[in-house]
Amino acid sequence: MAVTAPVTDDQATGRVAEIFADIRKTRGTDFINNFWRALAVDEDLLERTWTELKQVMLMPGDIDPLTKEMIYIGVSVANGCSYCVHSHTAAATAKGMSAKMHGELLSVIALAGKTNQLAESLQVPVDDAFMK
Amino acid sequence: MAVTAPVTDDQATGRVAEIFADIRKTRGTDFINNFWRALAVDEDLLERTWTELKQVMLMPGDIDPLTKEMIYIGVSVANGCSYCVHSHTAAATAKGMSAKMHGELLSVIALAGKTNQLAESLQVPVDDAFMK
Amino acid sequence: MAVTAPVTDDQATGRVAEIFADIRKTRGTDFINNFWRALAVDEDLLERTWTELKQVMLMPGDIDPLTKEMIYIGVSVANGCSYCVHSHTAAATAKGMSAKMHGELLSVIALAGKTNQLAESLQVPVDDAFMK
Amino acid sequence: MAVTAPVTDDQATGRVAEIFADIRKTRGTDFINNFWRALAVDEDLLERTWTELKQVMLMPGDIDPLTKEMIYIGVSVANGCSYCVHSHTAAATAKGMSAKMHGELLSVIALAGKTNQLAESLQVPVDDAFMK
Amino acid sequence: MAVTAPVTDDQATGRVAEIFADIRKTRGTDFINNFWRALAVDEDLLERTWTELKQVMLMPGDIDPLTKEMIYIGVSVANGCSYCVHSHTAAATAKGMSAKMHGELLSVIALAGKTNQLAESLQVPVDDAFMK
Amino acid sequence: MAVTAPVTDDQATGRVAEIFADIRKTRGTDFINNFWRALAVDEDLLERTWTELKQVMLMPGDIDPLTKEMIYIGVSVANGCSYCVHSHTAAATAKGMSAKMHGELLSVIALAGKTNQLAESLQVPVDDAFMK
Repeated sequence: MAVTAPVTDDQATGRVAEIFADIRKTRGTDFINNFWRALAVDEDLLERTWTELKQVMLMPGDIDPLTKEMIYIGVSVANGCSYCVHSHTAAATAKGMSAKMHGELLSVIALAGKTNQLAESLQVPVDDAFMK
Repeated sequence: MAVTAPVTDDQATGRVAEIFADIRKTRGTDFINNFWRALAVDEDLLERTWTELKQVMLMPGDIDPLTKEMIYIGVSVANGCSYCVHSHTAAATAKGMSAKMHGELLSVIALAGKTNQLAESLQVPVDDAFMK
Repeated sequence: MAVTAPVTDDQATGRVAEIFADIRKTRGTDFINNFWRALAVDEDLLERTWTELKQVMLMPGDIDPLTKEMIYIGVSVANGCSYCVHSHTAAATAKGMSAKMHGELLSVIALAGKTNQLAESLQVPVDDAFMK
Repeated sequence: MAVTAPVTDDQATGRVAEIFADIRKTRGTDFINNFWRALAVDEDLLERTWTELKQVMLMPGDIDPLTKEMIYIGVSVANGCSYCVHSHTAAATAKGMSAKMHGELLSVIALAGKTNQLAESLQVPVDDAFMK
Repeated sequence: MAVTAPVTDDQATGRVAEIFADIRKTRGTDFINNFWRALAVDEDLLERTWTELKQVMLMPGDIDPLTKEMIYIGVSVANGCSYCVHSHTAAATAKGMSAKMHGELLSVIALAGKTNQLAESLQVPVDDAFMK
Repeated sequence: MAVTAPVTDDQATGRVAEIFADIRKTRGTDFINNFWRALAVDEDLLERTWTELKQVMLMPGDIDPLTKEMIYIGVSVANGCSYCVHSHTAAATAKGMSAKMHGELLSVIALAGKTNQLAESLQVPVDDAFMK
């Protein structure tokens, strides 16, 4: 179903093999999901994207890793990215999202989706209090 | 710039006046932002939306209020709702989002937006490991 | 605020002038809204779009004109087209959409927006009963 | 393919069982589509969404039920919700949408999608005549 | 998985058969992809869409055919149209898009998706220098 | 109208000042548009985004710079990013996009937007011929 066939381990050489090794080492698992295997059709794109993901999602910051995953899910739902909803829901669950938290996440996304449409339907003018 | 003129306090009567009073009481401020004034063109819609917002965003749960606001922002950005980005960034700031957290939030949203497009461009097949 | 300056009546010549005349005659008003003045930067695009709009929105069919306008608004809200929400809400009102109908339209759009996000969040599999 | 396994009748207890019963009774059919089974992972979310759907789509109003379904389809297409396009096209057909009406619906959605992009491409300024 | 069953050659009569013949002749291949077979549920819609595609994509202009396909892919990715990403990536490849160009195309789409979200997140005001 | 006030030259220090200097040098102009001034609220985000833009848009590749700008516009229109449509239409014009090319670009974007909605409305199944 893919536009380009994902790169298998046998096909991975040079920089692609190095990045696959770094993904495995960083995540502590042998599993490499299809997203990275698909991106490997372009070495520069693969490297740039993996480097950014490590910086944004894995380096310690002031937003905790699970919260980041839930924000990621929210954006991916609204952008209609089926693959990303699957992979980041799995990631959030692995980082401790309970069934109850998942339900609350869904409720926030649903409410946001609803009020987004309402504000757009009514073309609500931004209040002066929100301007900078 | 609005599609319908927002309802002023003078125009608010009956159920609309009651909901405006509840918004003020619940939030502890006299300020009612334009979204609710615009929604007031339909009493049922106003009541349903305010009731849902109170349940989802204000009732204690397992996701903290600031995290909910940041998820809300992520969804609103991806849905392109200018009004909602303004109002919920203000809400997140009021609930303690620092400039550093804002920068991290922007970085997660940007990365998600980017990988959403990539997964869609490549039509990456969902890994068996993510299926239920 | 436009990307290209809208074409004024003075600037309209040849085919553009003919189409502006047809818009006025077809609609029975001297007013030509900015959308057509902006499209006039490309004669072919202007003609193709106006011809399609006449066929789809103005020729008698099995869906009545007001219903078509409300569908148009729903699509435009979800696509985030501010201009189109304004112009088609005005058109729907001109064709008889009451304040009560507007409230119901908003309620349907809001519910659809909400359930769209939920079905996407949960990646709900399409039921066999809905397949052809 | 789902993110969470849909709740079967055997698994449905308490409030979920009650809502499933209400769905069956309200619709006059034993069939419960996957959307509700997926939402059942969170009782509050299930109840809130079903209650809203009953109020918005099933209570008599000034917009007829078939028109509401066609607006729902338009929003769902623009939001890219595959599941919702399937389920609401089935619902519209059940409520009397003919093949000819379906063709007209598609034509309006296509035209709206096209002009939405054009107005966005050209950043057409909203006419004063459309402002309130 | 379709909402309506695609029209087979056996089922194609009258105007539909004529358009199918024109598609084959214009493209120099016997293959007619599912998009046109699905659109054939409405003769007017089929004819209008095929005529527009011939004018926009196949008539000589100042943008070359491969560039048009790459723009088409970019729009289709952002609109989340899985079918269109598949069919137009195939078309671009047939028109000479190399693996290296595909990688660069993906990089531009990814960057645009990212900066689109950032500009929306920050509600960046349009510079005077960009206004007309 | 911004969510955060753009960083002025006077406020730019350290790494932000260095990146502003690099933007000026790379582009050969003193003008720095609001996007970069807004991003400067987070140094890491500013640096990562500018570095990526230089690599993707400015380094020589197999897709020429003007084509990249037109793809960028297509994505930005579909994502509904008003700021990006303005800034990249200006960039495309500066790189040689004529009025005729702009008209053709608009026609491709409009057609893609239309057929995206149609393929989604009909849930057209991807042809085997397009699968890998």
